[in-house]
Amino acid sequence: MSKGRLLYAQSGGVTAVINASASAVLAQARARKIPVYAGKNGILGILREQMFDTAGLTSSEIKALANTPGGAFGSCRFKLKSLQQDAGQYQRLLDVFKAHDIRYFLYNGGNDSADTALKISQLAQQSGYALTCVAVPKTVDNDLVITDCCPGFGSAARYTAVSVLEAAIDVEAMAETSTKVFVYEVMGRHAGWLAAAAGLAGETAKEAPHIILFPERAFDKAVFLAKVKDTVAKVGYCVVVVSEGVKTPDGKFLAQAEGSVDAFGHSQLGGAAPMLAGIVKDALGMKVHWTVPDYLQRSARHLASQVDLDQAMAVGKAAVELALSGNNGVMPAIIRTSDMPYRWHIDPVPLSRIANVEKKMPDAFIRKDGFGITAACRRYLSPLIQGQAAVPLGKNGLPVHFKPKLPLVKKKLKAWVK
Amino acid sequence: MSKGRLLYAQSGGVTAVINASASAVLAQARARKIPVYAGKNGILGILREQMFDTAGLTSSEIKALANTPGGAFGSCRFKLKSLQQDAGQYQRLLDVFKAHDIRYFLYNGGNDSADTALKISQLAQQSGYALTCVAVPKTVDNDLVITDCCPGFGSAARYTAVSVLEAAIDVEAMAETSTKVFVYEVMGRHAGWLAAAAGLAGETAKEAPHIILFPERAFDKAVFLAKVKDTVAKVGYCVVVVSEGVKTPDGKFLAQAEGSVDAFGHSQLGGAAPMLAGIVKDALGMKVHWTVPDYLQRSARHLASQVDLDQAMAVGKAAVELALSGNNGVMPAIIRTSDMPYRWHIDPVPLSRIANVEKKMPDAFIRKDGFGITAACRRYLSPLIQGQAAVPLGKNGLPVHFKPKLPLVKKKLKAWVK
Repeated sequence: MSKGRLLYAQSGGVTAVINASASAVLAQARARKIPVYAGKNGILGILREQMFDTAGLTSSEIKALANTPGGAFGSCRFKLKSLQQDAGQYQRLLDVFKAHDIRYFLYNGGNDSADTALKISQLAQQSGYALTCVAVPKTVDNDLVITDCCPGFGSAARYTAVSVLEAAIDVEAMAETSTKVFVYEVMGRHAGWLAAAAGLAGETAKEAPHIILFPERAFDKAVFLAKVKDTVAKVGYCVVVVSEGVKTPDGKFLAQAEGSVDAFGHSQLGGAAPMLAGIVKDALGMKVHWTVPDYLQRSARHLASQVDLDQAMAVGKAAVELALSGNNGVMPAIIRTSDMPYRWHIDPVPLSRIANVEKKMPDAFIRKDGFGITAACRRYLSPLIQGQAAVPLGKNGLPVHFKPKLPLVKKKLKAWVK
Repeated sequence: MSKGRLLYAQSGGVTAVINASASAVLAQARARKIPVYAGKNGILGILREQMFDTAGLTSSEIKALANTPGGAFGSCRFKLKSLQQDAGQYQRLLDVFKAHDIRYFLYNGGNDSADTALKISQLAQQSGYALTCVAVPKTVDNDLVITDCCPGFGSAARYTAVSVLEAAIDVEAMAETSTKVFVYEVMGRHAGWLAAAAGLAGETAKEAPHIILFPERAFDKAVFLAKVKDTVAKVGYCVVVVSEGVKTPDGKFLAQAEGSVDAFGHSQLGGAAPMLAGIVKDALGMKVHWTVPDYLQRSARHLASQVDLDQAMAVGKAAVELALSGNNGVMPAIIRTSDMPYRWHIDPVPLSRIANVEKKMPDAFIRKDGFGITAACRRYLSPLIQGQAAVPLGKNGLPVHFKPKLPLVKKKLKAWVK
């Protein structure tokens, strides 16, 4: 009897190392002689019966995949609802799995994806189709529970710490006659993990960042402005890190609350950083610069942390092994056993414990004044940004990436009707 | 007779490699047994008689300086006017030089600094004080004439090309269900050199960036929107690179023209990227993301080009040699003799040919449709971003920088009255 095929799909926002997980999945499945299909644009491709056959990839191409940011097979923002509400969609997925003898489904994403993988596994069991579903963790938001961290986060954290460090040195050099306040915006709409990572750029009160604004703390304009003023007086300049998710006391996102339409009536696409920069300039009259790195922070493979890359590959490899050994409805989680030296291993965790739960920053990680990180937070974060994961350089001086060009599997079913 | 001292000062916006020039100046002067003072916060410190004595730096510290972005001794935005208008200030500089036996003045900056160095050299000659003034080129704007390029530019160019490349891969992976248009803002208020550097991220029409908006070309909203729409239809997504200096046909900066005050009456600190993102969203209804890297692009020592670093050090070393051999009123310029392999050497150029002249992008470097770079531009730019200039990593996983803590020289004059 055929062992069947493994189907791998990427979900949600991509990261600098999600393809490293993909690379590990492909390598390990190949070592175990299991053919691998990959969903085009994630689950949307599976619903449409659009899947790449990865058989044609060479071993060196699979390795090169791990050097490439983005999502090699395409990802999507497409959330399935409950089994009841979206019964037809779940059934369609199962039909596609059956038509192509998919016996292992690896879904690489965050909370939502864990939930989807769980539901598919349940449906398969109910219908008596032998299918093993495993979620592969990934998200720069770092908001999955149980796992020590989420692959993708460590690299975005490293990008943030390095960028804040370098920009602060620039600001410091010019502060007397130029920019006195620099505002740096990080991703993280609900949890302040990346904001916290900026805190690794400095250790003493004089070192940047001088102020971190977490989504876990309501924005108090007066207290914030007083702190900026005080920092400039004492240090000569002030570096502020603001999470895109920071809210005013009445629960509105800062960028919305102070949101605007320009003189021509166009929408001004928000950004907490430019808003905050305007507030500082108006109130304190200081020269302010700001940055919104946006996607740069999650795609910066050139700054990826080696620890993050290792973990991204470890969860990919473990997911294949868990699937092949019949561990249905689980996610390989990273379990920390020591801070320094950082020691960790992979353990399977039931998806029911992961799905739809969000891990916020614990209070013990945010300084009492709300503007910085604690020593405990530093102990947690520091191991995750260790090591520079090298990328080969091409003749053009730029990193060499690998984008697979694979054939789509021949369709066997009728077209998908949404 | 004492050979006198050499005074080094940094001017204007700092770069990822201006400290590499400083490092080379210090090393070469030391090899030639010339003591070096460094102006605190550039020329402002000289006027105030605030100068660091670099004698205490060890050789390894001088080397480590080359790994550090920002301006190690501080820089400033402070422009001297003509000899007539600012006679008192020039005289004060000369008084400080005389009081401290400064016989060589190395001024590390752009156009303005070359002009200042030239004027000081003229004044010294007129007053019979033996002083040799040499300008050391530096600017991410790459707008100095004669020299093939300006140290600092190659690294900012490399940052730009790598960042656009990585972000584009991210956008591509998600385009079907998420962001379709990504807008990336580069520095360069008057010249489009950094905008052009983004063009190195791709080679074919399908590869990002799909649209570059240069300050050398007026912004035509209708043509731009049509090009965005067409690109999304053909490629699936569109990456736009916009220079902060892009202007509307009536000569207003894009960010100003569409500038705004928020709902609370606060200034909205501009940015061409968020403005352009709003325009695209309103007109085409597509999901748009944008980034403004701001200072990150000029402080990213971690992405510095090896060629740029080599040139920054070469001009520093050459400046010392030129000064010691009595070449007054010159700047060491980088002279290109071959594109591929890139060959260059350093030649002195009279400051009178450099000062106050601005090098814009030649027409031959901008594609006929105004939205991209030509093969000639690619041949010019490509050598400048070659090689990754390594930075040592510390135990905390971050680049190790060196910030000198030096004593200020004892003052000999009365306080400066501006």
